[in-house]
Amino acid sequence: MLLYGWVGVSMRYMIDFSYSGWNFYGYQKQPLKRTIQGEIEGVLTSINGGDKVIIYSSGRTDAKVNAYHQVAHFDLNKKIPENKLKMALNSYLPNDIYINDVRIVDSSFHARYMVKSKTYEYKINIGTYNPMIRTFTYYHKYKLNVEKMKEALKYFVGTHDFTTFVCAEDKRTDKVRTIYSSDLSFKDNIITIKFTGNGFLKYQVRNMVGLLIKIGEEKIFLEEIPNLFKKKDRRCKFNCAPAEGLSLVEVNYK
Amino acid sequence: MLLYGWVGVSMRYMIDFSYSGWNFYGYQKQPLKRTIQGEIEGVLTSINGGDKVIIYSSGRTDAKVNAYHQVAHFDLNKKIPENKLKMALNSYLPNDIYINDVRIVDSSFHARYMVKSKTYEYKINIGTYNPMIRTFTYYHKYKLNVEKMKEALKYFVGTHDFTTFVCAEDKRTDKVRTIYSSDLSFKDNIITIKFTGNGFLKYQVRNMVGLLIKIGEEKIFLEEIPNLFKKKDRRCKFNCAPAEGLSLVEVNYK
Repeated sequence: MLLYGWVGVSMRYMIDFSYSGWNFYGYQKQPLKRTIQGEIEGVLTSINGGDKVIIYSSGRTDAKVNAYHQVAHFDLNKKIPENKLKMALNSYLPNDIYINDVRIVDSSFHARYMVKSKTYEYKINIGTYNPMIRTFTYYHKYKLNVEKMKEALKYFVGTHDFTTFVCAEDKRTDKVRTIYSSDLSFKDNIITIKFTGNGFLKYQVRNMVGLLIKIGEEKIFLEEIPNLFKKKDRRCKFNCAPAEGLSLVEVNYK
Repeated sequence: MLLYGWVGVSMRYMIDFSYSGWNFYGYQKQPLKRTIQGEIEGVLTSINGGDKVIIYSSGRTDAKVNAYHQVAHFDLNKKIPENKLKMALNSYLPNDIYINDVRIVDSSFHARYMVKSKTYEYKINIGTYNPMIRTFTYYHKYKLNVEKMKEALKYFVGTHDFTTFVCAEDKRTDKVRTIYSSDLSFKDNIITIKFTGNGFLKYQVRNMVGLLIKIGEEKIFLEEIPNLFKKKDRRCKFNCAPAEGLSLVEVNYK
């Protein structure tokens, strides 16, 4: 499936893509494991006549986390029309990954370093368990006080040290991030929570949602949230919410 | 996981259950293949201490077809509280099958022979391909004239000979069925078509939707529909719509 193009020029391509994370060991390539990066690089390498292609995404997502608009860039030593490349990718990729858009971009574009903000969404089903949506919605067996959860959102917005909400594996020393906006909607027994911020630490959104669930269960009270931020330790207080409820919704470069 | 109960009485149980058909070879048990009937009977047999349990459903569904409220019955030689049996089933069943309800019913109840009507739903995505919903929504690449499809629905309602819409494998001689009602809604680029009828032949709904797609593509016109019914042959005119878009929504016994 080698695609021919105008050879001899190095072109940078940006892809916007979606995936259902359910059947993947996460975004990042790992030997012998099915990963999103591995699948896309495999197809691109074939399209490139066997010459290895590496893709650079806006960031990783964990096993089972979904994406509606993940972004990555890569270079090819030929110019292939954007739409032709999009069609070729989609015809060879498995049905749980889809390329929404391919664009030729300036060689200075970097999908990771130039990110201005990202939006994540987390879905919680508090109605009847539904096997059809289980791959992108966390099922919570018990009732939640949705109004309390909505009120709690304001504690996350702004610039804060998010150490309390970080996975122990995250070795970045700077745990200060800014959340620009948050939103919670509730329809047909499904709670959808959204956060837009300049960057998120490992497990940060899932831990924030974990706290929101405890707030909804009325096991942690709103007034305790500032103290939890100060403590810089979440042990025993709330759990990291399951991965399948989380989706990367948007990556913004402007 | 043997569940103890009041032994020595034969009790009939009715279950209402949902499943995502994506990872199954259909409803009906088949040797060495993952089927919905096979999974449920396996768990029930364990709960019954190894004595084989057979379940009788309202009807089969094909590979990849989903259900929100399938119904089946089975007998056990003991009385187990309904809610206890529901919890036991759900804790041992895989996450793509869910028991919505268990009820002890009269021994004369039969999940198949007593069906009064069934409702099926078919979902078509005509927007951007979405890997999250691919397991319960057929993705159609091209635009469809939704208004024309809506108009076409009236041709199916009523009592008709549905031979044109039947799979060759269906050997039942009586191809006359009654469709009580039909509906089409369109939201966020997703077309949802519903049919309620006294019974459906093999592939009938998927073939009716196949014709509706050709109507939406404006390749077959509304005026041709009565003739297609008369012809009793669909060859070359339209295709059977893919299984994943179809879901059994309700089985009615009243």
